Amino acid sequence: MAQQERAVRTRNAILRAAGEVFDELGYEAATISAILQRAKVTKGALYFHFSSKEELAQAVLTRQLTSVPRVPRRDLALQQGLDEALVLAHMLAAGEPLVRGSVRLTVEQGSPQDGLDRRAPMEGWIEHNVEILSAARDNGELLPSVDVAAAAKMFVGAFTGVQILSKVMTDRADLVERVADLQRHLMAGVAVPAVLVQLDFSPERGARAYEEAAKVKREAEPVAVD
Amino acid sequence: MAQQERAVRTRNAILRAAGEVFDELGYEAATISAILQRAKVTKGALYFHFSSKEELAQAVLTRQLTSVPRVPRRDLALQQGLDEALVLAHMLAAGEPLVRGSVRLTVEQGSPQDGLDRRAPMEGWIEHNVEILSAARDNGELLPSVDVAAAAKMFVGAFTGVQILSKVMTDRADLVERVADLQRHLMAGVAVPAVLVQLDFSPERGARAYEEAAKVKREAEPVAVD
Repeated sequence: MAQQERAVRTRNAILRAAGEVFDELGYEAATISAILQRAKVTKGALYFHFSSKEELAQAVLTRQLTSVPRVPRRDLALQQGLDEALVLAHMLAAGEPLVRGSVRLTVEQGSPQDGLDRRAPMEGWIEHNVEILSAARDNGELLPSVDVAAAAKMFVGAFTGVQILSKVMTDRADLVERVADLQRHLMAGVAVPAVLVQLDFSPERGARAYEEAAKVKREAEPVAVD
Repeated sequence: MAQQERAVRTRNAILRAAGEVFDELGYEAATISAILQRAKVTKGALYFHFSSKEELAQAVLTRQLTSVPRVPRRDLALQQGLDEALVLAHMLAAGEPLVRGSVRLTVEQGSPQDGLDRRAPMEGWIEHNVEILSAARDNGELLPSVDVAAAAKMFVGAFTGVQILSKVMTDRADLVERVADLQRHLMAGVAVPAVLVQLDFSPERGARAYEEAAKVKREAEPVAVD
């Protein structure tokens, strides 16, 4: 194993462990030593990659978007967006540590002093939704009334809250179903009827599309699988 | 001022102060002494009403629903639900302390040891949305395809997340507008066309309906205004 590859693996192990600890305890209560224990790496290795808890948390936040594997291209851009939402719901429900930890860091207000930039992941998701909706517009999938920028914020915001509600009420047991439901309603407000009837909202698509996307990602970059 | 009235005022002052402190610091970092300082009451008075930080936080959570004044009855049940969402958005944006603090307590995961019941306010909002949607169904306002229980969860979840996104991105400056936008999209998926065209989604309705509702509430119960 090349030295660089080893460094990437160590970095990934630290980030996964940090994701778990931030998910369980939140930012304030999390400690570097809890993350060290979980990651099974030396203190030296951790500090080689990250100089502080804040830097580690920011890296977990930044990874949020890239830790969700990209769903292979669908014919309908709206089906692509829908499948991506189901994949993210599946990962949160299945307990993927980086995504869970990162989502907790994003939605928790923290203190003004903690210095974390929670906007970065939100902006990332909004931009990504703008891309999907713009592609849908170019394909003629969108109703003419749709304001792409406003709709992108709405998709991101609504997803964020539906996952919180599911966490509070069922510890995420019904998350994929709730997200499918949300998408069904939101799509009704943005898709032209001919596209709406073609969209497949089955919650089962979440796990399936995740496997499909993870396989593509593993083949493309065998080391940094998370 | 009767003794009972004075006790209600003190209790309200403590709850408002607790709402502010929980909003600013979150549950973990908040302390009874910070709440005491803010409320300008004696330690004895506070402990007469609440025996611990946990009990205080639970009371703030429980008050969430009742601290939002009820919007006077509208002809369309869906307009009523819409106006209530705009009122809640207005109160959060305007900085109403009990609602802000309570919402932060609800959406933050906390630690499994903190013993707070975050389900209570969520259940309250879901039940309230079931009532509104059931009334809408009885009035013939809903599309026949709508599953009232699922739609109620979706309205509550989506609102929760849209307010978090607005908090992260604009410190709630665009909240009322974002909620109006969300409602416009969600209603398109549940309302029959003849009702949909009658709904008024103007963000300005938030502040107006709040004043109207607060006036009704003040007249009904002059003491417990929050």
